[in-house]
Amino acid sequence: MNARLKRLMEEAEKQGWQAALVTNPKHVYYLSGFRCEPHERLLALIVTSSGRTALLVPELDRAGAEAAQAVDAIHSHRDTDDAYAVLASVIGAHASGLVAIEKESMTVTRYERLLAALPSANLTGMDAFLTAMRAVKSEDEIDRIRHAVKLIEQVLADTLPLVKPGVTELELAADIDYRMRKLGAEGPSFDTTVLAGEKSALPHGSPGLRQVQAGELLLFDMGVYAEGYVSDITRTFAVGDISEELKRIYDTVLEANRIGIEALLPGKAMSSADRAARRHIEGQGYGELFTHRLGHGIGLDIHEYPSLHGANEDLLREGMVVTVEPGIYLPGIGGVRIEDDVLVTANGPESLTTFPKALTVIG
Amino acid sequence: MNARLKRLMEEAEKQGWQAALVTNPKHVYYLSGFRCEPHERLLALIVTSSGRTALLVPELDRAGAEAAQAVDAIHSHRDTDDAYAVLASVIGAHASGLVAIEKESMTVTRYERLLAALPSANLTGMDAFLTAMRAVKSEDEIDRIRHAVKLIEQVLADTLPLVKPGVTELELAADIDYRMRKLGAEGPSFDTTVLAGEKSALPHGSPGLRQVQAGELLLFDMGVYAEGYVSDITRTFAVGDISEELKRIYDTVLEANRIGIEALLPGKAMSSADRAARRHIEGQGYGELFTHRLGHGIGLDIHEYPSLHGANEDLLREGMVVTVEPGIYLPGIGGVRIEDDVLVTANGPESLTTFPKALTVIG
Repeated sequence: MNARLKRLMEEAEKQGWQAALVTNPKHVYYLSGFRCEPHERLLALIVTSSGRTALLVPELDRAGAEAAQAVDAIHSHRDTDDAYAVLASVIGAHASGLVAIEKESMTVTRYERLLAALPSANLTGMDAFLTAMRAVKSEDEIDRIRHAVKLIEQVLADTLPLVKPGVTELELAADIDYRMRKLGAEGPSFDTTVLAGEKSALPHGSPGLRQVQAGELLLFDMGVYAEGYVSDITRTFAVGDISEELKRIYDTVLEANRIGIEALLPGKAMSSADRAARRHIEGQGYGELFTHRLGHGIGLDIHEYPSLHGANEDLLREGMVVTVEPGIYLPGIGGVRIEDDVLVTANGPESLTTFPKALTVIG
Repeated sequence: MNARLKRLMEEAEKQGWQAALVTNPKHVYYLSGFRCEPHERLLALIVTSSGRTALLVPELDRAGAEAAQAVDAIHSHRDTDDAYAVLASVIGAHASGLVAIEKESMTVTRYERLLAALPSANLTGMDAFLTAMRAVKSEDEIDRIRHAVKLIEQVLADTLPLVKPGVTELELAADIDYRMRKLGAEGPSFDTTVLAGEKSALPHGSPGLRQVQAGELLLFDMGVYAEGYVSDITRTFAVGDISEELKRIYDTVLEANRIGIEALLPGKAMSSADRAARRHIEGQGYGELFTHRLGHGIGLDIHEYPSLHGANEDLLREGMVVTVEPGIYLPGIGGVRIEDDVLVTANGPESLTTFPKALTVIG
């Protein structure tokens, strides 16, 4: 049994769980190494207090599950089976008592079907345990994130020469996604965002037929999945000459980014980094235009624990990897966001992102 | 108020819902026309029995929500707010009594937070209503799916000339995703699947560094998102000469595909199409190697109601759009799947897919 499954088993013993039932495919991968996209079908990793591990997979994933050799036993269900009845038979006598589930990813419908299939079980959440385990990355996970960051930085470097007035946001986004795959990424970790001119002021804007023009900002927010882990970076460029106001915004965001990164120290409250960066932006008179939190954890998911916002008093820990992404958005004119992926270490913050951040003129 | 919101309002009146609370972003889009990816933040469309509609959005999506002009009132929450407290204040007095939610997409954690924020509410599911409404497509939705099918067929046609012995599955997948975007798709509707040789026998395989080789099968399973709707097609090709056995499998799957499509008649049980296609494959001696259902609905999601499997006695209805995708998988040798997207009409099935299906030699 691998180290993560062992930790889950220990937690089960500590909490008195008769069984732990993992149905989020990312957690199945994280805990067992078996990677599977079951879509709406039921996938479950079952760990019982007797120390046994099992996978219940859709029939068409059976071969993959067998090849992964991750657990003691593999069970499968066909589309015509009642998957929950099969699950109940796999859990067997362990379905009486506390059974741990993932409340943060399980739907209410599944929950109600589980309640019906396991009438003697008392369903309880194991989310806090999984969140805490996932938040602190192993060396292997940090290497994967580092690799995902390197890939997206290479993509960005290769894309910049294509920026010319007249090219559309969508054309650049298509090129970026192509380069990701060609470099070996599994794909984008979220919808690749390329926003020109006034659209860069939309923190959640989507690339469209808007053309890049001289005298404007051009914002890239993007990342890849590689080996199951994500990267997430943002850089904003000047296309030709830009106004003094936009330069001032850029400098303000860049300094807030630096301040936010510096504040990422183990043992400090997560709120402190957000507040430090925000204070700088407020001091420059743009506080109202920094409309979102400073950053978020990354790993198996593009947004995961912790959330770096001003009211989060949880403490930073060594091994956490978070984004630092302050932004200022002038409605109708343009916005700047600069985002790095940062590892919290005992020796201070280490930015995994190394792409230059000084204001750069392209196009 | 648009026609869909009106239908929701009528359902609310019929069921005695004081409020309907829509938090699945696709349903918010479907019902209101406002498209938003809130990630883990709370997005909610609220319809009350008083006939009022409101959106609660993350602060950074406020501008987009205002531009959409979809509802009577827009409320927003910042990352430091308790979004559920804001939601409770928006629902106000309507939180006493039946409040309809989407149990199929809401997580247990959200459900428990809602229960805490709306202590006088009796939460009930509106999934059956939404599923039934979504299953029958409007003319506009059919046009969008038709467009998404045309796009992916163009991508496939443009990709085939690139197939040569030595090219890898991943290279082809990268080219495909690039072409999707260049043609104006929002992106793939699921991970683009290109499987060569024995890998084509894995119904859920992923493209890798496996090279295309002569004498083998090459399977493409792919689709795009375009204007919010998906396509999903599979074609299998012969790379050079293939064995008689593989040809026999191909012919068997092709005939099963034809039989499955012909069985899609309004008023008939969904099981009948699966059983008809399966009977043909069984008759050829390959029944055990057709390990999945015949197909599934498509629309806003790549897999949605209905599920075309042998135990589903629900009746087909005009306006449903489903995949028909029989397959035969010879472990270690190769697999064939042929998948079309089919509209159920009063005049019989209409395949939205028109890409040729006769066995074609490429490379």
